Amino acid sequence: MSRKSIFSELDYIFHPNSVAIIGASDKPGKMGRIFMDRFVETGFQQLHAVNPHETEIMGVKSYATLGDIPHSVDLAIVLTPTDSALQAVTDCAAKGVRTIVITTSGFAETDAKGRQLQEEMVRVARSAGCRIIGPNCVGVYCPSSRLPFPLGPGMEIGSVGLVSQSGFFADYVTYRATANGIAFSKAISCGNEADLTATDFLEYLGEDPHTEVIVAYMEGAKDGRRLFSVCKEISKRKPIILWKGGITEDGARAAVSHTGAMAGSRAIWEGALKQAGVVSVGSFDEVLECLHLFRLQPLPKGKRVGIVSAPGGAAVATTDVCLQLGLDIPHFSDRTKERLRHAMPPVGGSINNPVDLSFASLANPRIHGDAVRILAEGNDVDMILLIAVARGELLCDIVQEATAGLEAAKPLAVALMAGTDESIGRDFPLLLSNGISVYSDPSKAAKALSRLWEYARFRTAAEDVRPPERKMAAARAFSDQVIANALRKGQTVLSEHESKEVLKAYGIPVTKERVARNEREFAEAIGDIGFPLVVKGVGSSLTHKTERGLVYLDVRNEKEAWAVFEELMDKLKGKGPAVLVQEMVRGSRELMVGVSRDGQFGPCVVYGLGGVFAEILRDTTFRVAPVDRQEALDMINDIRARGMLTPFRGMEAANLDQLADILIRVAAIGLDHEEIKEIDINPLMLSHATFLAVDALIVLSCASQA
Amino acid sequence: MSRKSIFSELDYIFHPNSVAIIGASDKPGKMGRIFMDRFVETGFQQLHAVNPHETEIMGVKSYATLGDIPHSVDLAIVLTPTDSALQAVTDCAAKGVRTIVITTSGFAETDAKGRQLQEEMVRVARSAGCRIIGPNCVGVYCPSSRLPFPLGPGMEIGSVGLVSQSGFFADYVTYRATANGIAFSKAISCGNEADLTATDFLEYLGEDPHTEVIVAYMEGAKDGRRLFSVCKEISKRKPIILWKGGITEDGARAAVSHTGAMAGSRAIWEGALKQAGVVSVGSFDEVLECLHLFRLQPLPKGKRVGIVSAPGGAAVATTDVCLQLGLDIPHFSDRTKERLRHAMPPVGGSINNPVDLSFASLANPRIHGDAVRILAEGNDVDMILLIAVARGELLCDIVQEATAGLEAAKPLAVALMAGTDESIGRDFPLLLSNGISVYSDPSKAAKALSRLWEYARFRTAAEDVRPPERKMAAARAFSDQVIANALRKGQTVLSEHESKEVLKAYGIPVTKERVARNEREFAEAIGDIGFPLVVKGVGSSLTHKTERGLVYLDVRNEKEAWAVFEELMDKLKGKGPAVLVQEMVRGSRELMVGVSRDGQFGPCVVYGLGGVFAEILRDTTFRVAPVDRQEALDMINDIRARGMLTPFRGMEAANLDQLADILIRVAAIGLDHEEIKEIDINPLMLSHATFLAVDALIVLSCASQA
Repeated sequence: MSRKSIFSELDYIFHPNSVAIIGASDKPGKMGRIFMDRFVETGFQQLHAVNPHETEIMGVKSYATLGDIPHSVDLAIVLTPTDSALQAVTDCAAKGVRTIVITTSGFAETDAKGRQLQEEMVRVARSAGCRIIGPNCVGVYCPSSRLPFPLGPGMEIGSVGLVSQSGFFADYVTYRATANGIAFSKAISCGNEADLTATDFLEYLGEDPHTEVIVAYMEGAKDGRRLFSVCKEISKRKPIILWKGGITEDGARAAVSHTGAMAGSRAIWEGALKQAGVVSVGSFDEVLECLHLFRLQPLPKGKRVGIVSAPGGAAVATTDVCLQLGLDIPHFSDRTKERLRHAMPPVGGSINNPVDLSFASLANPRIHGDAVRILAEGNDVDMILLIAVARGELLCDIVQEATAGLEAAKPLAVALMAGTDESIGRDFPLLLSNGISVYSDPSKAAKALSRLWEYARFRTAAEDVRPPERKMAAARAFSDQVIANALRKGQTVLSEHESKEVLKAYGIPVTKERVARNEREFAEAIGDIGFPLVVKGVGSSLTHKTERGLVYLDVRNEKEAWAVFEELMDKLKGKGPAVLVQEMVRGSRELMVGVSRDGQFGPCVVYGLGGVFAEILRDTTFRVAPVDRQEALDMINDIRARGMLTPFRGMEAANLDQLADILIRVAAIGLDHEEIKEIDINPLMLSHATFLAVDALIVLSCASQA
Repeated sequence: MSRKSIFSELDYIFHPNSVAIIGASDKPGKMGRIFMDRFVETGFQQLHAVNPHETEIMGVKSYATLGDIPHSVDLAIVLTPTDSALQAVTDCAAKGVRTIVITTSGFAETDAKGRQLQEEMVRVARSAGCRIIGPNCVGVYCPSSRLPFPLGPGMEIGSVGLVSQSGFFADYVTYRATANGIAFSKAISCGNEADLTATDFLEYLGEDPHTEVIVAYMEGAKDGRRLFSVCKEISKRKPIILWKGGITEDGARAAVSHTGAMAGSRAIWEGALKQAGVVSVGSFDEVLECLHLFRLQPLPKGKRVGIVSAPGGAAVATTDVCLQLGLDIPHFSDRTKERLRHAMPPVGGSINNPVDLSFASLANPRIHGDAVRILAEGNDVDMILLIAVARGELLCDIVQEATAGLEAAKPLAVALMAGTDESIGRDFPLLLSNGISVYSDPSKAAKALSRLWEYARFRTAAEDVRPPERKMAAARAFSDQVIANALRKGQTVLSEHESKEVLKAYGIPVTKERVARNEREFAEAIGDIGFPLVVKGVGSSLTHKTERGLVYLDVRNEKEAWAVFEELMDKLKGKGPAVLVQEMVRGSRELMVGVSRDGQFGPCVVYGLGGVFAEILRDTTFRVAPVDRQEALDMINDIRARGMLTPFRGMEAANLDQLADILIRVAAIGLDHEEIKEIDINPLMLSHATFLAVDALIVLSCASQA
């Protein structure tokens, strides 16, 4: 891209020389007081208060209006009520303030009037070259510039960047994490995104050399496709730990009232985030648990976990959890077992994986470290999970001794199973600030390790150079024609036969079939296709043909065929009757492939279990189009019914390459034709190891006809 | 039952007048020292040490042998090495010790020699009327008797009872929970269960008037069926929060080495625990999270949750979680909204569910309490989830003021979103000991509430008097005959036709069908059943008939029928050829029903999605036989594909009562016939709103032939 990098475009926001707080106050509990307190605590130098009724607040000079400040102002924080926010923005524009943070709520997230007011503020700001963050947010946090958030100063400089559509999330996560020794580069709460969006700041943090790990909370995106590509690009270099709020219908209802963002469907978000290499989480605790690992540990080279546990019961339970998460708990090599045997107590315990240190570890806690070191040095596992019964300081020593001077770094997660809530509350910050990834429960450690592995796998796959899929220009021209014809005739869907003509043009295998409008054509079709065959009523308005009794399967001979023909022609009388004569495909493995044009992400490919009950069984997965071969293979592996494609009860293994190819081509159709709203191939039948589109429907977008 | 109640049988174990510690020590880190320390700390009066090398340990008189103690000993704790444990037991038997706790490991959980030694100890103890707890355990904790566990004294007396096959679980959970103000009645670590088992102690705690909530960790049960009935009976009166470890194959591997218990299959355990009303959890944290709620809150009357949140983002996310857990987030009545409007700040926020208190709640935290009180007083919700930003003491006041004097009690869970790990570590014990169920994350609070609701629902259902299902004596006699004939002929399975004869006798609808051994019989069968029909090869040794090409579907006329007959007779030549002529059942809804005789739980019923891919789609659920009508309906509702039984694309709704009836009857067959190892009805086809067993197989247990 030729445009200026977003980093150089937005970086000034985080380094203001002077800040004005509009609506500053000294009344306890008021936001104006909270912000003043924080800025005074951080010792920010060029701070100005604006309040018409005061001349000094918390020792800072206060001005009646912004215009009265005799210096330039880089960043203004607007804390005034909703109805005076526009005036504040107008003042900022007049003063030449570069960035305006509007914390006030009651705008687009509330009602139409609020939305209008919000748009007016943006218009005023933009005309003066100012940028707006918010409204309905807590603004910008940057310890290297001494810019605080409301909950606490926390001015340690670190490498975690955060962006959030929820102000509380931004504020609380930075506050709690900082107290645990996890320091941030920058954090942004962008609220209603009237001007600058979460995606803008994600892109910024992706380019920011001071940010190594990104945390995000999002409820929706105005441009899902851009969010998707930004995330996918960043994930190749640094991890994004993202919590998508508002995923269920009712959650989305709350989300609309919260930030005014539109939430996409849950399944599409899940697929898009996975495809972009994003680490998805679903709670505050999970955000922190991922941070503990991603910030401190190297990426694993594989998914083999070695478990070292003092308590035997916890070893059992943690093995369960790891295996359920798809991690491996391999057997150890003889050499490793021999080394463990020497290090372990003589009685009880186990030198298998999980290593059970037994009660003897209570008497000799250093044995934890010996076992970890043996696994770290050997080549049996890629990650280590230590379930420790020692308390804080001792545990720091044990882990640091065990891992000191090791060349091949492996991620290590430690579950601390000693002490009370209170002592654990003290031990956590101690361990984390000593570089030890610590958890209150081994199952959480296992979950974090599995996410680290998922991310490592994405990174490895992203390194592969993938050949671009060839363009299908002829197919595009042909199907443009089919669609144009249909639109001219006022169709909102392509008929089954027209739909298959489009699929066929793109190289997707379809059933052999012919349309017959009269007896002569029917006789020809029979001769051409051969028995057994399927006869269906045909027409663009004929959907749900089975329920309407317009489908005759397994027609075995001339006699049956002509009886069916007469029945169908009779049923279709007066509708320009025609029948579709198709080869009868036998197979019991039915899949579905399709495209759905999403409001946020554009054309998305769907793949899953097919057949009549596809909607009820809901075993599907989505990806944003286009998909490459690896992504298509990931989709195939995503569904619960994946075992259906293996050799099974005398059925052959499916050709997965052919299936991946079909997914890639279907995605291309969706991308090539904006007029297509939906493609639905169901069933895509696996017959004798090969795939065939047996029924298909393409729905056209009514919008594009207007 | 006429036998003595298990409570009066085992209660003495928890009230010993005198205790001897065999293997007492003063060396730091030794278990002998740890136990001495704890008993001295609790101030237990009649304590004796046994150690041949000391005369006094920690101020307690020490004897060379147990026999030297000049008093009677009620409870002995054996801490000696594995090879001297038998001698210790022999000494206890001679001394007339009533209960022997053996903490030592290296017995049945290690090898055959250890198992032999363990059995010998039991023999010696039983011959003298002593009971053994362990080996490989930490014994018995009872604060009212001042009996401690190794981690800490924690002598507060409470109402939680705990039993565990893992010593660490028992020790750590009591220790951490006690530090949070959750006190226990008794806790038992029963290790290898050489004599007394976890099930014994569960039954004991069920009868114990001092125990109101039970917590358990189990890896397996020697008698699953007894465990099941004990749990089911207890759950009608008090909740059991149970963690089943060793659920995956590798977890089970570790479990075998840990306690020597046999782990049953995961799916059967899940079904059995659900059926018994047990609250299943899967991690240490979940155990504590459930305890926080079950110990303190009343049972809810329904599943409607009202969410009150200061942070808007958290409200969105928590709504997601609740809905995914199957809870309802209802809209409020006008009256409730009106009351909330008066209590709420003028700007931002929402008086819908979730209630968003907005940033104003930071300035006025008491607003949390107003909203909670309004929801507690109204009739809009059954449970309340408060996401609070206030710290410990203030939050205590707010919640207590809000709920004081309320008549209709509703469960309230509080997510504390304020402070650091360290301050939260202090606030948790404070809130819990003030009767407030507190969580570090709202998603955990939601999960605990959903479990409380699941349990409340079980309790309500358990109150219904259920009519006993009538006995099927004639069916039993008939099928005894069929099975006996088959066994006499050396069959290990019943043929499809024989299997269906058994099903039919029990009133399960099967396809109309006849066996034909020659042309005359075949002609008769055709005439009797009518076209279209299905023709299959028949014989007890013929399983997987489809793969062997022995099934001809949709045979439409005489000509096709006779061609098929000849082909089949030819294929089956020399095997006493016969064919099965069946009505052709059309339907696309295929289910499966069966029985599996489990090593731990005996005959279990399985129900799920059927068809060729049943094993791959694995959408099944299990229950222990017998099942009553409510349990059968629960099973039907358990599977993901349940929507398949609703009216769908022109298909009728299924008759769920008929389906429940089939499940009840299949369970009865499994219970009536010990010789039956497996019953497999697949597909059970739904054809025109009614169910029909289309294919069936009964596998006989080879063991019963021996």
